[in-house]
Amino acid sequence: MTEVQMNVFPIKWDEENEELVWLNITKLPLKETYSSSKDLAQIAHAIKSLDVRGAPILGEVGAYGVAIAANNSPNSREKILQNAKKYGDMLFRTRPTAVNLGWGIGQVQDALKKAYDNGETPSKMKEIAIDSAKAIQKDNIDATRRIGRLGKRLIHDGDVLMTVCNAGTLAIDGIGSALAPLRTAWADGVQFKVLVTYTAPLYQGARLTAWELKKDGIPLKVITDNMAGHLMREEKATAVWAGADRILGNRSDESGTVYNKIGTFGLALMAHELGVKMHVAAPTSTIDPVRRTAHVKIEQRGPEEVSQLFGGTVVVPEGVEVHNPAFDMTPPGYVSAIVTELGVATAPYSSSLPKILEHRQSMVK
Amino acid sequence: MTEVQMNVFPIKWDEENEELVWLNITKLPLKETYSSSKDLAQIAHAIKSLDVRGAPILGEVGAYGVAIAANNSPNSREKILQNAKKYGDMLFRTRPTAVNLGWGIGQVQDALKKAYDNGETPSKMKEIAIDSAKAIQKDNIDATRRIGRLGKRLIHDGDVLMTVCNAGTLAIDGIGSALAPLRTAWADGVQFKVLVTYTAPLYQGARLTAWELKKDGIPLKVITDNMAGHLMREEKATAVWAGADRILGNRSDESGTVYNKIGTFGLALMAHELGVKMHVAAPTSTIDPVRRTAHVKIEQRGPEEVSQLFGGTVVVPEGVEVHNPAFDMTPPGYVSAIVTELGVATAPYSSSLPKILEHRQSMVK
Repeated sequence: MTEVQMNVFPIKWDEENEELVWLNITKLPLKETYSSSKDLAQIAHAIKSLDVRGAPILGEVGAYGVAIAANNSPNSREKILQNAKKYGDMLFRTRPTAVNLGWGIGQVQDALKKAYDNGETPSKMKEIAIDSAKAIQKDNIDATRRIGRLGKRLIHDGDVLMTVCNAGTLAIDGIGSALAPLRTAWADGVQFKVLVTYTAPLYQGARLTAWELKKDGIPLKVITDNMAGHLMREEKATAVWAGADRILGNRSDESGTVYNKIGTFGLALMAHELGVKMHVAAPTSTIDPVRRTAHVKIEQRGPEEVSQLFGGTVVVPEGVEVHNPAFDMTPPGYVSAIVTELGVATAPYSSSLPKILEHRQSMVK
Repeated sequence: MTEVQMNVFPIKWDEENEELVWLNITKLPLKETYSSSKDLAQIAHAIKSLDVRGAPILGEVGAYGVAIAANNSPNSREKILQNAKKYGDMLFRTRPTAVNLGWGIGQVQDALKKAYDNGETPSKMKEIAIDSAKAIQKDNIDATRRIGRLGKRLIHDGDVLMTVCNAGTLAIDGIGSALAPLRTAWADGVQFKVLVTYTAPLYQGARLTAWELKKDGIPLKVITDNMAGHLMREEKATAVWAGADRILGNRSDESGTVYNKIGTFGLALMAHELGVKMHVAAPTSTIDPVRRTAHVKIEQRGPEEVSQLFGGTVVVPEGVEVHNPAFDMTPPGYVSAIVTELGVATAPYSSSLPKILEHRQSMVK
């Protein structure tokens, strides 16, 4: 089995200098530059300025942040705990609605508390904090590799695949979610090509997905969002691969409903009409076992993202209103398969997704 | 019957100063400014720089250009003919593939030749040239008004309509093609709202259609192209209204095939899947009675329009290829109705469109 090479990383622990290294995502695709620091104010700034972003990656940064707070502390068991709390709170305030950020912070704080209760020495406590953060990142990366191995079976020689937004390393770490099966298939020698949709209004497809796939040597072309239908037909596309921000995984007929970046539903509609598969890939942490569609509110973002193009060019006349929903909802009838690190779900999702969630539950020690 | 007010004009003959006035379209939507000139070098520059554009409008400008060449001439019958030829050729070279431009130039040259042959005086020849250009513009404008009156019957209270690109005054003159039924219905008091799609990569929807509809006081919101599917469902859209660059009107089952701005086919696919009507409006000059789909080649434009956003922001990594088809093809099965100035065609188009063409033929004196 070929291990997929990671040609790019969003964040990394620098063992030698005991600091965090991160890719300056906001500079892409013009420049590939990295920053590194053990200064938590600088790390907080990187989160706020969206240089570090994506739900799973924010979890990792939260964890590393608390580990750094511990590691920077004087050799006092109490001081270590205090700083883990103080700087954890500070980091959390950078993006208080980012669930994973808080989760990552809490994980390392809990590990430190346990180490303290067990009477570990200050230097052992620091070691535990760093190991705990590294384990969180490793678990994330491993999950993307499993998504890749399970999803690659859906990709065949001659395929023409379409992507939306960036569901790659830059959003998820590892080899990404929707990009993981593509990379794994490519490493196995499967020949295909990719049409990468712009994904207005922030153009993460053009800016980030294209950059990642180019690094991997996977053949691709970027297309504007309104070319999707035409090129699905003309280029004989075989599948759309999308990530997900939330997947309903309850036992109702809404199970398998996918919330993802705006544009996903449009691609699903066109794919359905043209007989093209619609595949979704996401870690099981994305599956929501409880909520119904009625409970999910779609975030509306500010109008200036639409009235001005990315980069600032005004294209909408003054005084004209715009819509700016960040996500859309794709009903399960349009979804061919949902690839997770614990298995591939197909319809009926009301039984396949709860089964995957049970499997996950049984793995928690 | 309410006459729809024209709140904007792309070109106009200034009777008093005997010169052409045109809207500087490239400055929209930031500034509404007009230029005027009887200097043919300046008019040629306006065509080349796309300040004056759109097939029917180029026909009018070609006609006015030759009229101005005649009008600027010394009072010599021969000089008038020579200048009409010389400046007509010069104007034609500005955009040699624009069929209508050449047609408009030829119409006024022919009128002048006939006037010469009839022994008209120099001043009468000048008058005939100007009247001929004005008649061409008037015919265009009248056709848009007829499209409006015929198409408005398809628009009802509470409708939510979606548009693509700019099929308005700025492309067609008069009250536009796809926008004509909207304006006519609005003037009649029908209440509806419009979702205007961006239309990447040149954003004519956002920049031009939104600007026109706002002038008319019609309620609208601009949306990015990838929001179309989501908002068709969420806003309960009732119809898409598109213009056309070419409509096949032969007697085969390809009749009713619509070539229009890229994105039209995607909207048609989504509309079909969601039970939304897909209406096309265009003058009969757009109907091609002969060609089959196999004979129509879709123009591919330069990559920099896609790799850089309108305004210059680079969004595609260096070395990554892009697609840039300017148009797409929508099969007749997706088209609910085709509104022309001589009638509304519905399926089967293999009989309805040839009938409209016959009607047109019978009107040519």
